[in-house]
Amino acid sequence: MDVDLWVHSAAQLCIVPPSPEGPQRGRRLGELGLISDGAVAIKDGIVVASGPTDEVGGQLDAIAVEIDARGKVVAPGFVDPHTHLVWMGDRAAEFEQRVAGATYLEIMAAGGGIMATVRATRAAPVAELVDAMRPRLDRMLAHGATTVEVKTGYGLDTEAELRQLEAIVTLDRQHPVALVPTFLGAHAIPVEFRECPEAYVMLVIEEMLPAVADKARALGLARLPFCDVFCEASAFDLDQSRRILEAARALGFPLKIHVDEFEPLGGARLATELGAVSADHLVCTPPEEIARFGEVDTVAVSLPCTPFGLGHHAYTPAQAFLDAGAALALATDCNPGTAWNESLPFVMALASRYLRLTPAQALAASTLNAAYALELGDRAGSLAVGYAGDLVILDLPDYRQLAYRFGTNPVEKVIKAGKVVVDRSVAHD
Amino acid sequence: MDVDLWVHSAAQLCIVPPSPEGPQRGRRLGELGLISDGAVAIKDGIVVASGPTDEVGGQLDAIAVEIDARGKVVAPGFVDPHTHLVWMGDRAAEFEQRVAGATYLEIMAAGGGIMATVRATRAAPVAELVDAMRPRLDRMLAHGATTVEVKTGYGLDTEAELRQLEAIVTLDRQHPVALVPTFLGAHAIPVEFRECPEAYVMLVIEEMLPAVADKARALGLARLPFCDVFCEASAFDLDQSRRILEAARALGFPLKIHVDEFEPLGGARLATELGAVSADHLVCTPPEEIARFGEVDTVAVSLPCTPFGLGHHAYTPAQAFLDAGAALALATDCNPGTAWNESLPFVMALASRYLRLTPAQALAASTLNAAYALELGDRAGSLAVGYAGDLVILDLPDYRQLAYRFGTNPVEKVIKAGKVVVDRSVAHD
Repeated sequence: MDVDLWVHSAAQLCIVPPSPEGPQRGRRLGELGLISDGAVAIKDGIVVASGPTDEVGGQLDAIAVEIDARGKVVAPGFVDPHTHLVWMGDRAAEFEQRVAGATYLEIMAAGGGIMATVRATRAAPVAELVDAMRPRLDRMLAHGATTVEVKTGYGLDTEAELRQLEAIVTLDRQHPVALVPTFLGAHAIPVEFRECPEAYVMLVIEEMLPAVADKARALGLARLPFCDVFCEASAFDLDQSRRILEAARALGFPLKIHVDEFEPLGGARLATELGAVSADHLVCTPPEEIARFGEVDTVAVSLPCTPFGLGHHAYTPAQAFLDAGAALALATDCNPGTAWNESLPFVMALASRYLRLTPAQALAASTLNAAYALELGDRAGSLAVGYAGDLVILDLPDYRQLAYRFGTNPVEKVIKAGKVVVDRSVAHD
Repeated sequence: MDVDLWVHSAAQLCIVPPSPEGPQRGRRLGELGLISDGAVAIKDGIVVASGPTDEVGGQLDAIAVEIDARGKVVAPGFVDPHTHLVWMGDRAAEFEQRVAGATYLEIMAAGGGIMATVRATRAAPVAELVDAMRPRLDRMLAHGATTVEVKTGYGLDTEAELRQLEAIVTLDRQHPVALVPTFLGAHAIPVEFRECPEAYVMLVIEEMLPAVADKARALGLARLPFCDVFCEASAFDLDQSRRILEAARALGFPLKIHVDEFEPLGGARLATELGAVSADHLVCTPPEEIARFGEVDTVAVSLPCTPFGLGHHAYTPAQAFLDAGAALALATDCNPGTAWNESLPFVMALASRYLRLTPAQALAASTLNAAYALELGDRAGSLAVGYAGDLVILDLPDYRQLAYRFGTNPVEKVIKAGKVVVDRSVAHD
């Protein structure tokens, strides 16, 4: 067989195979399909063979590009299923105030918090949004991400939300990383609706959702973006969240939901009831709602950078989710308020420590299961035959070092759809 | 005046000036001497001018190298006053076991723990130790460190300890980063002395200390290495620690001591009594011992990567140390057992969250105060005139982003003694 790319002789090849039921659920999380002296062959952007170097090599005829991965780890490109990558401005001053003891309300009163980001983001045209997002996405790619979800939600009016969506779609077409858009008009109640949040909920349902669907078609998207809601005491209550998500579902949007970051409102149960593709955060989810994740397809997405970013000590009770049989995934939650971090390797290192995931579990939760959180589990996040030819070559002799070490970037090369798009082997750090 | 290097137009120049009493003590920590549109001029490896660009520029005649730092932050090169950088092997398997719930004793029984590293390190000749250390030091430099302390302590016999010392001195002479050696023969009781730890204490005192002093002279060191002891229930008790440190002091060694990482044994008080240059870890130090740090020159070095690396939630009570008037510094503690991290920016981000240091405090604790923890506070860790021409140019518009963001490397260029030794501006991530 002729192939475009052959990566061979890897010290360890992590295939991360799908299970018979798809994602790696519960205690099955962490099946890497690990192969010593492993190889992957890619043709037309798709994995056509993966396994021991001698077996894969025996099937090959013409090879366009060959990479010797001796002494290194080869794994699927990382998948980040939850980011807020399109924002303007920063909130470094607010961070400093928070460290010094300012409360959330004091920060809001001083003009900080999410509305500071909304003000800056609303003012920006699409091209500026794209320019602001690009270096962040470059860093994500340099840290191994090949598929990244990006949410709107700093517009909070119809036009600004549509501009954010357009920026995401625009950058997707310019950048090696595949972007998956999510509409998060229900991220916060904007200040101008503070006295009548119900009117904002109606705006989301009646004006924004149809406008986003129209815009998605006008932009030529093959499927509608996800629709997401921030279900939290400070944002949208359970009833408002339900109404928005039901309206979105009726229009054909696949669903996501932010739940239980600070207070349990029943959002996790709502996610499983509505068949949401994922429920995200899940820090203070009650045990009876955790149990539901063993019975449904909704992926449980943990975002450990958020408590870390806030200096909190309560993280997703990941072991309880695994005991329940949940499909657990990880994401950066990269955002300017609580967690400005573009590195999924750091997320894995953090999750090994404060969620007690083994390195193998953290890796599977950042690849295959993360792809399932984006309804892409049949094509991304694995190096099984038929999956996208997206992979990372790590300058590590053992995949466990991904989580064991922290603070530095282990990625040497990133390959997207069979093409080398990052090579840090020359000026390595 | 003619200069070798002129860095100018920085969005922010952080001078981090020494205080009248030297280090920035207590609540004075975090005085950055911040200058907008700032510049630094370096001649013969020393800062000869720093301040507003127009003022500094007005003093200059011939300029050999000019760097425009527009939009960026310029700060002193970071100083790491506590690392265990010279080791062989890794402990990724042990990390995995620990995450999965194995106890320290189970890991030791399975041949893991510090003795696994000792076995591997004892077997290596000097050249292999240097080769193992070099990429770690490269990563430290790429993350902005220009002065790094390195401890022996994985030899635990005289010859192996001397080889570790020789490796540190050898790499110091080959590498842009300035290395400061520390003798830590009293890092652990080696297995062969487990039944008679007292005999090992005597070996350290009677054989190793004189041998290290001789070796230091033979290697041409201008001063003796530090002598350090791991004062902890699982290692050396208070009396043993005192005897080793008093013997070292009598030979002219400056002193350091690991204290209160897991259990308070009175080691912090011992450090202040003996006039140790620093006491390190300080997680469970009793309040009355914390108070002593306001009255002595001993620098309190916090190592937040260690509790982080272990997934613990108890960190140095940094606010209590500041309230007491202590000179607080930060370090990576880079080591294969608990904290394999080479990034001081990550330490700053972590310390802002779990030690509640402001970004300015974290920066001063990783520069000037860290230099004081190495008795180098009069020549490193500041960009005041007369200090070493060691600086970092950060691809950040505001120094607060150093701590606000995390997981990625903000360093664009590193300058050591006036020479550019790292430039990541081309292939930036």
